[in-house]
Amino acid sequence: MIHLSLIGIGTGNPDHVTRQGMAAMNAADLILVPLKGEDKADLAGLRLQICRACVTNPATRIETFDLPVRDPATPDYVTRVNDWHDAIAARWEAAIRAHLELGGGPRVALLVWGDPSLYDSTLRIAGRVGLRLPLTLEVIPGITAIQMLCAAHAIPLNDLAAPVTITTGRALRMDGWPDGATTIVVMLDAGGAFRVLDPAELTIWWGAYVGMAEQILRAGPLAQVQDDILATRATARAAHGWIMDIYLIRKT
Amino acid sequence: MIHLSLIGIGTGNPDHVTRQGMAAMNAADLILVPLKGEDKADLAGLRLQICRACVTNPATRIETFDLPVRDPATPDYVTRVNDWHDAIAARWEAAIRAHLELGGGPRVALLVWGDPSLYDSTLRIAGRVGLRLPLTLEVIPGITAIQMLCAAHAIPLNDLAAPVTITTGRALRMDGWPDGATTIVVMLDAGGAFRVLDPAELTIWWGAYVGMAEQILRAGPLAQVQDDILATRATARAAHGWIMDIYLIRKT
Repeated sequence: MIHLSLIGIGTGNPDHVTRQGMAAMNAADLILVPLKGEDKADLAGLRLQICRACVTNPATRIETFDLPVRDPATPDYVTRVNDWHDAIAARWEAAIRAHLELGGGPRVALLVWGDPSLYDSTLRIAGRVGLRLPLTLEVIPGITAIQMLCAAHAIPLNDLAAPVTITTGRALRMDGWPDGATTIVVMLDAGGAFRVLDPAELTIWWGAYVGMAEQILRAGPLAQVQDDILATRATARAAHGWIMDIYLIRKT
Repeated sequence: MIHLSLIGIGTGNPDHVTRQGMAAMNAADLILVPLKGEDKADLAGLRLQICRACVTNPATRIETFDLPVRDPATPDYVTRVNDWHDAIAARWEAAIRAHLELGGGPRVALLVWGDPSLYDSTLRIAGRVGLRLPLTLEVIPGITAIQMLCAAHAIPLNDLAAPVTITTGRALRMDGWPDGATTIVVMLDAGGAFRVLDPAELTIWWGAYVGMAEQILRAGPLAQVQDDILATRATARAAHGWIMDIYLIRKT
């Protein structure tokens, strides 16, 4: 029986890792670190840096593996993502089998950016792996980009006792402002989904690389700051080769 | 100039604290721990236990103070809460002034259950204190009950690429199921707000004392498990003298 730990590691700063996360990393026989292609080499490097900062157990093996890419020839979004998850599960399975064949122990850990529960495919992929290898699953929460964004701006997520909708750039483009919402948080935006909104009476708090040394923050009335955010985002993306950003918008 | 750190400590397990949170506790000259009246003595005790587990700096003073209570004679909810926040800010200010008069250093920390951004008044109270004392504010995120609930059930918060609405028991009672939502998370429910919903096609994942040794979990179709959840909640509340619970409901 394989014990698989999905460990949320926060948004790239080793100091986000919890005591529980550190203990789980050091209890692992194998930590798998996915590589996402050259343009994301920075991210794999960050994961390895977090491993180095947290893992003191010399018996813990840290191993990278190449992530497959989504097939752009599959037109349907959900099918494309499901196929991709199948392919990732096959890579995990191969990496775990190879480790066991070399006599490795049964405790395997995967480091998850942010938290395993939030817009992350690791739980779904683990479900697929569980159909092909006997495993028990443990989830260790990590700090999300939502929390880092609010902390960096020193703002509450919610208005007093009011609801909050967490959504994606894709959903915002397709459906516009969610019915009845007064605060929304937008994740996984390829850039500028907020342009579908009428900016009147909306205030935005935006952050890129939140919690990391490269952190960039902008805030203000959406009408006033949206152009600056788009230009800042494009410049930062070009400079780093990748960007992760997030924003909160509130009706005022 | 006072440096005020609001440190998210997670949901009661010292292992939820991040490396950043531990460093901030140990950098503090004073850690203020609120006491909420006898029925919540357990919670103050847990905060002190977390301090003891994390603070190794002998120069860090840990001090408790009594929280005022909300005035039930104030009929309007928002006014009642605002008055209460004013009263809490006055207690913080008094505790900080007393510490400084005794020659204490300027680094003050407050431990916040969960994360300071999520249904917590600490940021709003800090804003009031900042009007009366010169202070710089630092927010250190912590693991929320939402993340612990999802981790304990090993479920994603969101359906694939789909939005999530975070709301309160009060809002659910007043407004019913949020328009357009497929997943909701309900916090701060005094008990059973889900009874306002038609349970058909709804699945619930419920947890009390999530992440703690006392953790209780229930999950299933709402129609089948709601009575068990209410009975379990009442029993646990009577046994402990207090309860903190949370739930996620998804349309299926």
